[in-house]
Parts: sequence; C-alpha cells; structure tokens
Amino acid sequence: MSYGDRMSSTRTARSQERRAEILRSALDVIAERGYRGASLAAVAERVGLTQQGLLHHFPTKEALLVAVLEERDQWDSVPRSQWRLDLLGTLVEYNAMRPGIVQTFSALLGESVTEGHPAREFFTRRYAEVRGSMAEVLRAEYGERLPGGLTPERAAPLLVAVLDGLQYQWLLDPEAVDMPGAVRDFLELLAVEG
Amino acid sequence: MSYGDRMSSTRTARSQERRAEILRSALDVIAERGYRGASLAAVAERVGLTQQGLLHHFPTKEALLVAVLEERDQWDSVPRSQWRLDLLGTLVEYNAMRPGIVQTFSALLGESVTEGHPAREFFTRRYAEVRGSMAEVLRAEYGERLPGGLTPERAAPLLVAVLDGLQYQWLLDPEAVDMPGAVRDFLELLAVEG
Repeated sequence: MSYGDRMSSTRTARSQERRAEILRSALDVIAERGYRGASLAAVAERVGLTQQGLLHHFPTKEALLVAVLEERDQWDSVPRSQWRLDLLGTLVEYNAMRPGIVQTFSALLGESVTEGHPAREFFTRRYAEVRGSMAEVLRAEYGERLPGGLTPERAAPLLVAVLDGLQYQWLLDPEAVDMPGAVRDFLELLAVEG
Repeated sequence: MSYGDRMSSTRTARSQERRAEILRSALDVIAERGYRGASLAAVAERVGLTQQGLLHHFPTKEALLVAVLEERDQWDSVPRSQWRLDLLGTLVEYNAMRPGIVQTFSALLGESVTEGHPAREFFTRRYAEVRGSMAEVLRAEYGERLPGGLTPERAAPLLVAVLDGLQYQWLLDPEAVDMPGAVRDFLELLAVEG
C-alpha cells in the first residue's frame, strides 16, 4: 500500500465516520422538530458543520433524508432466519413511539410519486425488495395458500399497503387510530383457516 | 327580495359557476401535467383568468387542490342505499385510468402530515368520514363478525389503508402492482368464512 493509498483510505474512513455522525444528528433533529424542521441548516448546526460542509456529504435535503431512511432500514432489519410475522406488530409499536421518523418516511413517500423526484428511485427499489421479503416471510409462516386463495406473492403488497396506509391515518389522528392494534388485526385476517 | 339581494345572489351564482369552471380546468391540467405541473399559473391560463383573478377564488395551490379532491369525492360518491363492496374494485379500476388525480391525492396526503399543513384538516376529517362509511358498508355486507373475529369498525381502517397504500406502490411501479386486483384480493380476505 503506497503512502497515497493509505492517505485516501484514512480520508474515506473519516468521511464515513462523519457521514454516520450526520445521519445520527439528522435523526435527532427529525425526532425533535419533525419533517419540516429538519432543514439542512438545523442538521449542520447540530453536527457542528457549516451548511457548505454538510452539502459536501449530502447535496440536498432529500438526499439526506433518503440516507436517514436507508440507515433506519438497516437498523430495523432482523436476520432473515429470525424473521417472524408477529415481529411486525412489535416493530409498528416501536414506530408509534417515534412519530418524527414515521412522518419523514410518509412525507417523503408522498413527494416521491411526483415527477422527477430524487427519492423516487429509493422508494421504488425499496418496495420491490420489501414485497419480496414479505412474501418469503408469509410463505415460511403459512405455506403456499393463504385465506381467500391468495398466494404469498399476492398477499405481500396488501401487507405493505396496510403498514403504509395506517401510518397516514395514525399521523393525522393518533387518538382515533390504534396503529399497532390494526396491524395485528390484519395479521389475524391472514391467519384465518381457509 | 331587494335589488341589492338579487344583485348579490347573481354575483354568488356567477362566482359559483366560475369556481366550478376553475375546478374542471384544474382537473384537466392535473391529468395532463401531474401534480407538479398543476401550478396556479397553468390553471389560470387554462381557464382564461389572470393569476390574480384565480387567487381571488383560491388563495394557494393547496387550497385549489383540496377543492379538486373534495369535488372528486362528490362525483365519485354513490347513493348510500346502492353501495356495495364490489363497487370498490370498479372504482379502483377507474382510478387506475386517471393517474394524475391519484398522484395529486397521494402527494397532498403525504404533505398533509407535516406541521401546520393547510390540507391536514381536510384529510383528517375525510378519513374519519371514510372509516365510518366503510364500517357501515362492511356491516351491511358481512354483519357484525368478520374473519379473524374483527368487527366492521376494526376492519374499516384496514380497508382504507389498503386503498391508500396500494396507490403509492402502483404510482411508483405500475407494471409491478395490479392495484385493482390487489383490492379484490383484500375483499376476498374479508369474505372468508371464519
């Protein structure tokens, strides 16, 4: 390894570390101030960077928020061998305690369906992956045939839709919607003997 | 009725007419150019008003879009006595032919969960109403007990969530998601004998 290589790998490691620090700070700002309050300026201040310095890592607010959501997906992920459907209820209960990140996800998902939005690719890819892994989990739990004659592949988009759709109803009116309870209700529907 | 009264009721009728005309034009612009393209300027031009003239009727883009969604709800509504659950599949099939309005609904719903958004009240009220009327339709169709031991009131938020959640998946990747088919799949789940 040449001197130059060592320099650049140190620089990369530092840059990675700084990036992780920015994401943690962004998550804090989101939790405290919500989606609108999570400006690049607020995150830069929290992490002790100039706005210019932050822009070096994330060129736009959308890029930063997508990175936060990707990071959350990583933290929330459970090793495939340990996935069980009832963990979903627990995950949603946990989400109900962190409205800031749920709001950020939901607001960004809404924006992403508009023309040429920078988060569109992230969500499109994420949904293809999530539908695939949910189908796997459903198959492991219920086999090839679910109630109503559904296959795991046909039930998966419904499960994903329930999770997302309930988040909007809950964010708008948390008193009226028991989000974790409703998710468990849906899992009951999938568990009915056909 | 005094002369003044007659004058003002004529003015009101004209204003109502102009308002309806603006909403129709907005719907056209949305269909052609999508959510981002539906600017106040584009709608004003289509309806033959100055932007100032349009602002007299709708002070912001959000106010205009909420009015468009309210108007759509009115047009889509079926007399309560004639509501059947399988009409939902038909309505969703119809929606799949008008992505512009579905996109507008979904984008505005996403924005509405952010702090102090002008569409928040519209969506909060709409969801309370829609959950209520869906519960009624479910009760009329299936009685008090649905699969998994669910009541109509507990199934209603799930049904609404499925409709909204599928719209996002479909808007992002229309080839991968059969939105009307998935809605029919969910209705099958609700129809399973417990």
